[in-house]
Amino acid sequence: MINKLVKKIEDLSAPIVVGLDPMLEYVPEHILQKAYREKGENIEGATEAIWQYNKGIIDATYDIIPAVKPQIAMYEQFGIEGLKVFKKTVDYCKEKDLVVIGDVKRGDIGSTSAAYATGHLGKVTIGGKYFRGFDEDFITVNPYLGSDGVKPFIDVCKEEQKGLFILVKTSNPSSGEFQDQLIEGKPLYELVGKKVAEWGELHMGSSYSYIGAVVGATYPEMGRILRRLMPKTYILVPGYGAQGGKAEDLVHYFNKDGLGAIVNSSRGIIAAYKMKGYEKFGPKAYADASRQAVIDMREDIKQAWVAAKR
Amino acid sequence: MINKLVKKIEDLSAPIVVGLDPMLEYVPEHILQKAYREKGENIEGATEAIWQYNKGIIDATYDIIPAVKPQIAMYEQFGIEGLKVFKKTVDYCKEKDLVVIGDVKRGDIGSTSAAYATGHLGKVTIGGKYFRGFDEDFITVNPYLGSDGVKPFIDVCKEEQKGLFILVKTSNPSSGEFQDQLIEGKPLYELVGKKVAEWGELHMGSSYSYIGAVVGATYPEMGRILRRLMPKTYILVPGYGAQGGKAEDLVHYFNKDGLGAIVNSSRGIIAAYKMKGYEKFGPKAYADASRQAVIDMREDIKQAWVAAKR
Repeated sequence: MINKLVKKIEDLSAPIVVGLDPMLEYVPEHILQKAYREKGENIEGATEAIWQYNKGIIDATYDIIPAVKPQIAMYEQFGIEGLKVFKKTVDYCKEKDLVVIGDVKRGDIGSTSAAYATGHLGKVTIGGKYFRGFDEDFITVNPYLGSDGVKPFIDVCKEEQKGLFILVKTSNPSSGEFQDQLIEGKPLYELVGKKVAEWGELHMGSSYSYIGAVVGATYPEMGRILRRLMPKTYILVPGYGAQGGKAEDLVHYFNKDGLGAIVNSSRGIIAAYKMKGYEKFGPKAYADASRQAVIDMREDIKQAWVAAKR
Repeated sequence: MINKLVKKIEDLSAPIVVGLDPMLEYVPEHILQKAYREKGENIEGATEAIWQYNKGIIDATYDIIPAVKPQIAMYEQFGIEGLKVFKKTVDYCKEKDLVVIGDVKRGDIGSTSAAYATGHLGKVTIGGKYFRGFDEDFITVNPYLGSDGVKPFIDVCKEEQKGLFILVKTSNPSSGEFQDQLIEGKPLYELVGKKVAEWGELHMGSSYSYIGAVVGATYPEMGRILRRLMPKTYILVPGYGAQGGKAEDLVHYFNKDGLGAIVNSSRGIIAAYKMKGYEKFGPKAYADASRQAVIDMREDIKQAWVAAKR
């Protein structure tokens, strides 16, 4: 799956992942009202609206992006009905041949980590038949519990030829509270980064490991250091755009081969029609605004590369 | 909710929480076969079996325990059908007036943490009406992302009079890989513990905070230190029994008032009928074995207290 991700990124010249993190307030009124008319002004109606909204964005962008990253929290907030739409979104994206990174940030120990891995990446066997839960291609994982929390995920990844992105340095303002603390003169995120590189050796693809890292766009200096520490690790970079990360900072997250990083944008793509510069699309053409925002983001990253090479 | 938890612990003299972490292999054959006959040998049948198994344990123990801790991973591994049984289990336990600690170990940033908090502790408003997702009383939270990852959970807790247990020092063998690393001479878990005590001040109950901590039974010396660092923090203690934690070690996790800690046992209670000393119950009376295991655990902790006071 890492090989497929790398190939798609190369073919489309787009190291971009679209964060499918829908909020009810992003959904255009015409979609919301239609869903309420059909399913009622209730949890079924609201989650139907989110599904239709997602579908519009996927249909408008799937041919120019390699991957999507649905954030499960945005679905989980609506309980079971929300999680049904998460699953429907994962399945639909896979039909469209997109690589699906489930942003689930799970993490536990032993058999519990194994159970999460089974639910999101693997399968259960009942009466000799396989059943798959959410069936993403990659998921994000929290490393706080250490190796015996992470290894059960890697075991399932090996069986399924799937992968992980492990949190190393997150994009939020207070990520430094624990992650930047110095241990023998080096910040914790470097120690975690080294571990991710080690874990990565357990499950290598052809040029990069199936075990990736999450490093926020908002800390480019740290990105540069982590890039060097984890040469075979694909880095998933959140925080571009709405969170403040700029394209010129992103070059630090890539290797010289122009690969090694995939940049996430959520709100900036899926709610583009509400953003400065995209108002002309209006709510009815929200998906066209998302497509344009992907094209602009691709160009923004490309220009930053050109500038960096000068 | 923390006041209710403390009161129930006092009334029952049982600082015990039963971990409802069902595995298909724990479910007695007669329950499994009945569920397969009724729903088919498939995901519906398997999750029905887990539900019937849980219900038996809850019915047999609810009057002698203050709380349960369903581990969501064990349900999530079966996808949507599994999560329906998680929800059914939460609801049934609340009907039985048990305090429900959702062991979900969620953690993210900003609006994403807020979405998890909404889904597990809070409510969404649609058309002026409230809808609740999973609706546990407490959940466990991973602190790796720092304050702005944790505070959105606390905000929802304040609104709902609910609480958290935040991972500080986990019970697994490799928990030290990151958690024990020294920062200015003190391990990371102490820094996290201090933060938990600070966060706890944001949402106090009458004697303890709504914001608790998770500290594994397998590291009693660290438990003693953390107990002192977080005097108003309730400590949820996993790792007793099957994971190797002993009753005599547990005394360090309590305050002098005999309160301040609640000890989890999962496999040792729910799969007691498969354990040494409980074989006589047999699979048909598995729930009676669970009840006896609770009674024995309560006595084991009590004896350790008596020994410690001598």
